[in-house]
Amino acid sequence: MSAAPSSTLETIARIRQEVCILHAELTRYGLVVWTAGNVSARVPGHDLMVIKPSGVSYDDLTPEQMVVTDLYGVPVAGDADGEWGNPGLSPSSDTAAHAYVYRHMPDVGGVVHTHSTYATAWAARGESIPCVLTMMGDEFGGSIPVGPFALIGDDSIGQGIVETLKNSNSPAVLMQNHGPFTIGKDARDAVKAAVMCEEVARTVHISRQLGEPLPMDQAKIESLYARYQNVYGR
Amino acid sequence: MSAAPSSTLETIARIRQEVCILHAELTRYGLVVWTAGNVSARVPGHDLMVIKPSGVSYDDLTPEQMVVTDLYGVPVAGDADGEWGNPGLSPSSDTAAHAYVYRHMPDVGGVVHTHSTYATAWAARGESIPCVLTMMGDEFGGSIPVGPFALIGDDSIGQGIVETLKNSNSPAVLMQNHGPFTIGKDARDAVKAAVMCEEVARTVHISRQLGEPLPMDQAKIESLYARYQNVYGR
Amino acid sequence: MSAAPSSTLETIARIRQEVCILHAELTRYGLVVWTAGNVSARVPGHDLMVIKPSGVSYDDLTPEQMVVTDLYGVPVAGDADGEWGNPGLSPSSDTAAHAYVYRHMPDVGGVVHTHSTYATAWAARGESIPCVLTMMGDEFGGSIPVGPFALIGDDSIGQGIVETLKNSNSPAVLMQNHGPFTIGKDARDAVKAAVMCEEVARTVHISRQLGEPLPMDQAKIESLYARYQNVYGR
Amino acid sequence: MSAAPSSTLETIARIRQEVCILHAELTRYGLVVWTAGNVSARVPGHDLMVIKPSGVSYDDLTPEQMVVTDLYGVPVAGDADGEWGNPGLSPSSDTAAHAYVYRHMPDVGGVVHTHSTYATAWAARGESIPCVLTMMGDEFGGSIPVGPFALIGDDSIGQGIVETLKNSNSPAVLMQNHGPFTIGKDARDAVKAAVMCEEVARTVHISRQLGEPLPMDQAKIESLYARYQNVYGR
Repeated sequence: MSAAPSSTLETIARIRQEVCILHAELTRYGLVVWTAGNVSARVPGHDLMVIKPSGVSYDDLTPEQMVVTDLYGVPVAGDADGEWGNPGLSPSSDTAAHAYVYRHMPDVGGVVHTHSTYATAWAARGESIPCVLTMMGDEFGGSIPVGPFALIGDDSIGQGIVETLKNSNSPAVLMQNHGPFTIGKDARDAVKAAVMCEEVARTVHISRQLGEPLPMDQAKIESLYARYQNVYGR
Repeated sequence: MSAAPSSTLETIARIRQEVCILHAELTRYGLVVWTAGNVSARVPGHDLMVIKPSGVSYDDLTPEQMVVTDLYGVPVAGDADGEWGNPGLSPSSDTAAHAYVYRHMPDVGGVVHTHSTYATAWAARGESIPCVLTMMGDEFGGSIPVGPFALIGDDSIGQGIVETLKNSNSPAVLMQNHGPFTIGKDARDAVKAAVMCEEVARTVHISRQLGEPLPMDQAKIESLYARYQNVYGR
Repeated sequence: MSAAPSSTLETIARIRQEVCILHAELTRYGLVVWTAGNVSARVPGHDLMVIKPSGVSYDDLTPEQMVVTDLYGVPVAGDADGEWGNPGLSPSSDTAAHAYVYRHMPDVGGVVHTHSTYATAWAARGESIPCVLTMMGDEFGGSIPVGPFALIGDDSIGQGIVETLKNSNSPAVLMQNHGPFTIGKDARDAVKAAVMCEEVARTVHISRQLGEPLPMDQAKIESLYARYQNVYGR
Repeated sequence: MSAAPSSTLETIARIRQEVCILHAELTRYGLVVWTAGNVSARVPGHDLMVIKPSGVSYDDLTPEQMVVTDLYGVPVAGDADGEWGNPGLSPSSDTAAHAYVYRHMPDVGGVVHTHSTYATAWAARGESIPCVLTMMGDEFGGSIPVGPFALIGDDSIGQGIVETLKNSNSPAVLMQNHGPFTIGKDARDAVKAAVMCEEVARTVHISRQLGEPLPMDQAKIESLYARYQNVYGR
């Protein structure tokens, strides 16, 4: 591999910092325990991504540990070379799913995966979350859909995410019996979607425990979504 | 616009400080995630209010960022002038609702809006919270009422809040499919109402999960409310 | 009133410190919001007690603010004198109930009142918590009983607490539509009872949401209780 | 008892440090209140274990306080000798159960006991947790089983743990009406199992509140488990 230009290295350093720091939002909002969740970001202008290393505690994460891979999830350079600064750690075991999303959704700049409790509870029943809150209209523009059951180890999870999200306003998909994956224009945006996904999963769950939430007209949902996406420039 | 007298500027500086700090109570009690909740205060003796800027994380809030608007939600002075110290940030997207409340309820000095989980769960069902706890008698003097479904963008939300609260002891209203708005004689009082609203929404929800809470006589509720409002001087 | 001997003042200083610090356990375990819970302690060897002042935030509590009262809840010395160091703050609005307990239960050295969520949810239904956990056998020696509905303002609450607890192993009583009061040999012991009361209220609630917890033989409960009380020397 | 070789003392110092620090994970993830949970570790190469002292707050734990016992739970050396550094504190009241596990499961290097809320709620109903989440397949390789009702005071609890776990992939057992015990190749691994046990207990509970989670094929569970145990080298 030829030497990386210094501007690319600066970009990667910045993205590593950002991806590292964003994991603190997952713990702050209680979306993850132990090491069970991960954030990645596309490196703009390159067929590269940056993702959490496997098995490292959130407390111990440093920007230098974030792993740079190609869009097939293969770490670049690595031990033997070191030019890209990869620390010899394996990328997250969910890397293949993130990578598949970046290959097939060119506008996506960030991906997040968690097993956040309420979203995963809906996923275990294979049930989509109905849009019954104005904040859900704003952020998701409709219900949060369910993706297929898929085992880790090949592209099944990535395919399930992409097939489900390409037909939806929602930046979140609940993979059946597994948990949510979210996307965004960058990593921060995908983290926000993960936080909001759990928030609405919890609120709608609790609302349904004692009765049926009142439905919202599709036209009103569209109106909320159009306004919010416009205001916040997504 | 003529120059603002220095005493007004001091008052505004104090209110900015207070409004900024009070947002930490929203995060402390878990009433908000990301940027989805806001506190405002009337500037005593002026047709002005101070409110959270739109889209700024609670971690990053500084008093200087709080936006001063008139009671129609229009930022005063602003970029071109700067005399009022507005930082060029937009006020919260909920500013119109806060402003409507200040215009129509002259005794209100503070307004808070959140999407706190349990209160929003009741709001999604369009169900008022029955008064079955002595602390609810103390603080709310009866049930917490539901306001109409209303879309953001005009005065519908503000009108719904005012119409609902003017017929109630409660300083909190659950806007249908949306979430709670609370009022108080000042911003701290409105924040307390937001905290207590979520607390009773959660406790009554949990109580009802396994049966029906025992009702309290209206006379006893009135007695609790009269005593508490007297003792705490509201 | 004659001058207080210096040894009494030292005792009171120590108890003030202890009562103040113990309020941090109420916030740590999420038993209280805003100012809605209080700890008191008897002053050993004196007809005096020390209790939280009314309306002060937990963040701001200092030992000096703790109010010394007689066992009818009347602050001693106070503003005019100051010898006992009372800061001119009113004692908690629940002081009468604490005082009644100290007058009628001479072995009680500490009292705690909260509106902790799950315990209060059982209280709102007027339902005692069945003893279906070994830790509940250890700490409570049976079910946690419900006390009568009682309004603040006279001795009704105190009477309800004492009548209920004198026929029970439990150091906790759920006052109907109100919340738990707990007792202990000292304030720390009463705080532990408040923490454990909420813990078992929550666990048994959650267990019952999906079925019926398995009952435990009364003989086994007695055995657990006898052993635990002996080991921990209560 | 003859003098302990210095290498053993170094090993014990290291294990004391590790066991002490791991208790912070129990409080961080909300698995314990007050003093109601404990971690132990086997001392590799010796018939010794290290466990939390009884009745000490998690805040106050220091490595020096961790108690070294033989595999019958008897503190070694102790006050009179002091060579092993035992601080004169009693080991946890659950020591006999930990010790029984170390005697009968030679590959186990760490044991954890908590009363974590959701796991204990399943235990109170005597109901095993069905494997309906991919993360549960990864970590537990099937359902989390229930162990018998057993009173403290003899080897009943230890026997119940060992009998249940020896027929299961799961490193966690829910002792009926009591709470979870977990095992691992070392103390950290057992703590991870305790954290994940509560996480899946909560998620499956919440999922079942509004319907029935979708089952996962046993073959798929085995596949997840085999892959995960291989990758993480357990």
